[in-house]
Amino acid sequence: MAAARHYTLDFQLSAKADGDAILKGLQSVFEEQAMTETVHSWEDHGYLATYVNKNGSFASLRIYPHGLVLMDVQSYSNDLKGREEIDNLLNKLEERMKELCQGSIGRLKRLPALVRGGKIDKYWPTADGRLVEYDIDEVVYDEDSPYQNIKILHSKQFGNILILSGDVNLAESDLAYTQAIMGSGKEDYTDKEVLILGGGDGGILYEIVKLKPKMVTMVEIDQMVIDGCKKYMRKTCGDVLDNLKGECYQVLIEDCIPVLKRYAKEGRMFDYVINDLTAVPISTSPEEDSTWEFLRLILDLSMKVLKHDGKYFTQGNCINLTEALTLYEEQLSRLYCPVEFSKEIVCVPSYMELWVFYTVWKKTEF
Amino acid sequence: MAAARHYTLDFQLSAKADGDAILKGLQSVFEEQAMTETVHSWEDHGYLATYVNKNGSFASLRIYPHGLVLMDVQSYSNDLKGREEIDNLLNKLEERMKELCQGSIGRLKRLPALVRGGKIDKYWPTADGRLVEYDIDEVVYDEDSPYQNIKILHSKQFGNILILSGDVNLAESDLAYTQAIMGSGKEDYTDKEVLILGGGDGGILYEIVKLKPKMVTMVEIDQMVIDGCKKYMRKTCGDVLDNLKGECYQVLIEDCIPVLKRYAKEGRMFDYVINDLTAVPISTSPEEDSTWEFLRLILDLSMKVLKHDGKYFTQGNCINLTEALTLYEEQLSRLYCPVEFSKEIVCVPSYMELWVFYTVWKKTEF
Repeated sequence: MAAARHYTLDFQLSAKADGDAILKGLQSVFEEQAMTETVHSWEDHGYLATYVNKNGSFASLRIYPHGLVLMDVQSYSNDLKGREEIDNLLNKLEERMKELCQGSIGRLKRLPALVRGGKIDKYWPTADGRLVEYDIDEVVYDEDSPYQNIKILHSKQFGNILILSGDVNLAESDLAYTQAIMGSGKEDYTDKEVLILGGGDGGILYEIVKLKPKMVTMVEIDQMVIDGCKKYMRKTCGDVLDNLKGECYQVLIEDCIPVLKRYAKEGRMFDYVINDLTAVPISTSPEEDSTWEFLRLILDLSMKVLKHDGKYFTQGNCINLTEALTLYEEQLSRLYCPVEFSKEIVCVPSYMELWVFYTVWKKTEF
Repeated sequence: MAAARHYTLDFQLSAKADGDAILKGLQSVFEEQAMTETVHSWEDHGYLATYVNKNGSFASLRIYPHGLVLMDVQSYSNDLKGREEIDNLLNKLEERMKELCQGSIGRLKRLPALVRGGKIDKYWPTADGRLVEYDIDEVVYDEDSPYQNIKILHSKQFGNILILSGDVNLAESDLAYTQAIMGSGKEDYTDKEVLILGGGDGGILYEIVKLKPKMVTMVEIDQMVIDGCKKYMRKTCGDVLDNLKGECYQVLIEDCIPVLKRYAKEGRMFDYVINDLTAVPISTSPEEDSTWEFLRLILDLSMKVLKHDGKYFTQGNCINLTEALTLYEEQLSRLYCPVEFSKEIVCVPSYMELWVFYTVWKKTEF
C-alpha cells in the first residue's frame, strides 16, 4: 500500500548526552546511505540534524542534552525493498548507538511505524484520546449523509466497524455492547413494548426481535446509516433492516425528539426505552443551548414515555472520562421526576477501552 | 511529566500538491513563532522544510508532489503553556492549509501526540505489531530477574498490568483470560488434580483454589514474578501467593521441564494441565533447536502426565497471527499420542486484540 511510513527510534540515556560524540558517531551510518546532513545546534538545547536522501526519504536526529536521543525516519515506499532499507538503517543506528553509549542506555524504544497518508486510515483514537492502530484492511463504505460522515471499515479481527464522524460506534465483534445496552441478559422482553432511540446499526433491534417482544419501535434519523449497515454489518443486524416494518417491529426514519414529544402527548408508554444515540446526539431541531441540556431533554422525554416500572438503558462513556460521567449523573438528578440508576462496566472488543452503561428507572415512593 | 511530545498533522489532497505555494503560504505561520527555516527540494520528490525554534522545539514540513503534506512538530515541554503554544501552532497551520487548498483536502488527520522519552512508557504494541497507547500513569514495579524483565504498570482502566520482557501478560481487569484458560466455566474442578505450568501472576491458582480441587501444583520458574504479583496484582491473585503451600495447593519455583519429566517417570497423573507459560517459554535447559520443538516437548510431556479423560488448556496467540496458530496446530498433530483440540476466541480487556485459547485432549479409540 502506497503511504509514507514514519519510523521512530528513541534512546533514553542514564547520563547526559555527549551530543557531539553521538552526532559524529552516527554520521557515517547516514553517509553510507548517501544522505546529506544539515546540523542545527542550540546553546542550551542540544542538536538537531536532518539527513536527506536522493530518493525522497529523510531522517532527523534530535539530541536533548539531558540524555534523550530521538530519531525519526520518514519514507514514502510502495515496496518491501524500501521498507527493508529503512529497517537496515534503523538496525545500524541502533547498533552504533549501543556502541557509542555503552551501558548508559536506560531505555530503547522502537515503535511500529506510523502509516501516514495511506488509502486506508488505521488510526482511530479512543474516547479518552489515546492513539490506537486498528488492523483495518479495507474501506467498505464511506459516505457523507446530511448528518454525519459514515464509514464502515473492515478489521481483520473485529469484522466490519461502523465509524460515525470519526467515532468508533460498533463492530461486528461487539455483541457485548448490544447485550449491555439491553440489560445484560437480565431482562424479559417477551410481550414488551420497546422504544429504541438511534440504533441504526440494527444490533439492538435484531437481538430484541429474537426475544418475542410485543412491539419494538426504533427511531433512527439517518437512513444512510441503515443503508450502510443492512449491507455491510449483517453479523450485527441480520436481516432485520431489510424491511422497515416486521411482525413485531417498525423503524421510523425520524429525529427522535419530535417523536418522543408526540408519544408523550399521546400518552404512549413503553416497558423499555433504549437510548443508542451517538455520544453527542444529532437533531434536526436543537432547541437547547448545551449538549448537557440536550441530553437532559432526551432523558426527560424518555421518562415521560416510560412505564412506572419500566427501564431506560443507555451507553455512558469511556470509564476514564470521569468528569463526563459525573456530569451525566448530575443530569439524572435534575429530571422532572426522581430516578435511580445503576451502572455497569463492559469490555466492548473494538473499543480498546472499558465502557460504562447505565440503567435508569423511576424512583418509587413507599 | 517531562517528555518530548511529537505531533503530527497530515493532509491528503485530492489533487497534486503545489509545493511552492504551500511552502510560501505556511512560511508566515512559522515566522510568527520566530522559527528558522531550512528548505530542501528534490527534482521529483517535492519539498522538505524544517523550522527550528530558539526554545529547542522544531517542525518539519514534507510535501509529496502527488498530494500528501505531512507536518511534524516536536517539543520537549514540561508545562501546559508549552503544549498550548504547540496546539496554537498546529491550529494555525491547519487553518492556513484549509485556505491554501480550498476544497481539495481529501483527508485531514491530527493524531494524539506521541510521548517520547517520558518517565512512563505508555506504548506496548500488540502481538500482531500494532501501535497502541495505554492509559498508564505509574510504574509500580520494574526489575530484571535472571529470566526476564518484569514490569508492573498501573493503568487507569485496567488496574495493574504485568508486562514480561515487553509483552503484556495480564492485567487486574483480565479475569476473562483466567476464565478462558480454565475452560470457560464448563469444568468441574472439585476434587481434581491440577497442574499449572507457569502462571506466576497467581490468577489461575486463585480461581481454581476457590473451586475445592483435591490438589493444585503450580510450577513457576521465576520467584520474582511471584514476588511482584503477590504485592501488586492482588485483584488477580488474592492472598494465594502469600504462601507457596496451602491446604490444596503447592507452588514449586522450578523450571517445568524437569518437573514434568519427573512426574512422567513417577507415573503421576493429572485431571487438568494448564499451560500458562509465556509465548516463548523460558527454560533453564533448552534442549530443542527451535521454539516449535520446545513447545512440542512441553506438549508431549504434558500429555504424558494427563489422565486419559483429562484436559489440557493453554493460551494460543492473537487471532491475527494465523500462521503461528496454524504452526501450533501442526505441532498438535505430531505428538506421541493422537489428540483432538478445540479453540475459543476471547476478548481479554487489556490486550486490545482478540486472543485464541486451546483445549486439547487425548483421542479415545472406539
